Amino acid sequence: MIEKTVSSKTIYKGKVLDLKVDTVRLPNGKTADREVVVHRGAVAVVAVTDNDEIILIKQFRYPTGKVLWEVPAGKIDAGEIPEDCAVRELAEETGFGARQWEHLSTFYTTPGFSDEIMYVYLARDLYIDERKMDDDEFIDMYRVPVKNAVEMVISGEISDAKSIAGILLAAARGST
Amino acid sequence: MIEKTVSSKTIYKGKVLDLKVDTVRLPNGKTADREVVVHRGAVAVVAVTDNDEIILIKQFRYPTGKVLWEVPAGKIDAGEIPEDCAVRELAEETGFGARQWEHLSTFYTTPGFSDEIMYVYLARDLYIDERKMDDDEFIDMYRVPVKNAVEMVISGEISDAKSIAGILLAAARGST
Repeated sequence: MIEKTVSSKTIYKGKVLDLKVDTVRLPNGKTADREVVVHRGAVAVVAVTDNDEIILIKQFRYPTGKVLWEVPAGKIDAGEIPEDCAVRELAEETGFGARQWEHLSTFYTTPGFSDEIMYVYLARDLYIDERKMDDDEFIDMYRVPVKNAVEMVISGEISDAKSIAGILLAAARGST
Repeated sequence: MIEKTVSSKTIYKGKVLDLKVDTVRLPNGKTADREVVVHRGAVAVVAVTDNDEIILIKQFRYPTGKVLWEVPAGKIDAGEIPEDCAVRELAEETGFGARQWEHLSTFYTTPGFSDEIMYVYLARDLYIDERKMDDDEFIDMYRVPVKNAVEMVISGEISDAKSIAGILLAAARGST
């Protein structure tokens, strides 16, 4: 089943992503091109309050042209471990810290065209930390009962893959 | 919250995706660059047999370097409506047709850097159709009880975002 790299051409090196086009050898001996978005990975945090509310954020996502409901999330910095990134992003985007952290899932967001890997954590026993939002981030924060967040997933009001997966995984884990 | 496009530069036009870098005006008046992977959208199908088994496939995903468990899925052809794409991809990848189709979810796979939208369907009342796999597709197919598929999601054995979301949504919909 494996495809072997024959050659690799870097098309673009950017801030968030790189793009390369590789020629690969297929199992049947033929060759094909693979367009690959190279990404350094990201984290998402399902933060649940003592009152069983999930911290959700709303932010404008330029590629979609829409304001989306999401769980706090962000890209891993160079050399940063995912756990540290999760703590940092939760603080930056919501001002919350958490005393209990649990790994929920690690998945590929779009394995057909990207290597982006997403580490998802469940954060509990929250406390108010300092909100250190980037100057160029514009984010609204809400507390939504877990049950309502699951309903927002099922109704389609939440339309972000990592948030859907994270909220349903947290609910399946019995954290409701 | 909205970011307005100031200028747009196409970096690459490919088979699966295009890449553009846009300069945008932020709400605070500053400008920033946005790297955007333009994608024509995709579908995923959670196909459930009369015996409550989900049809899962295994295939090599070059960007990840791994063989992944996934639900059948594929890119929407130019001019194709998502529903037709779902029927086509299920037949191509598994040889199954379905008499009952239900829309489960529509979500963005990676709203931070792509406009890719994923339409997820629940397919039931399956029948054996002709498997019309592309010459260059190498896919193994399995039937996995819904309960076990959910366990594979929770344990991390299934590590593909659309499959995680689709399987948990199908389970939440009470299709188990």
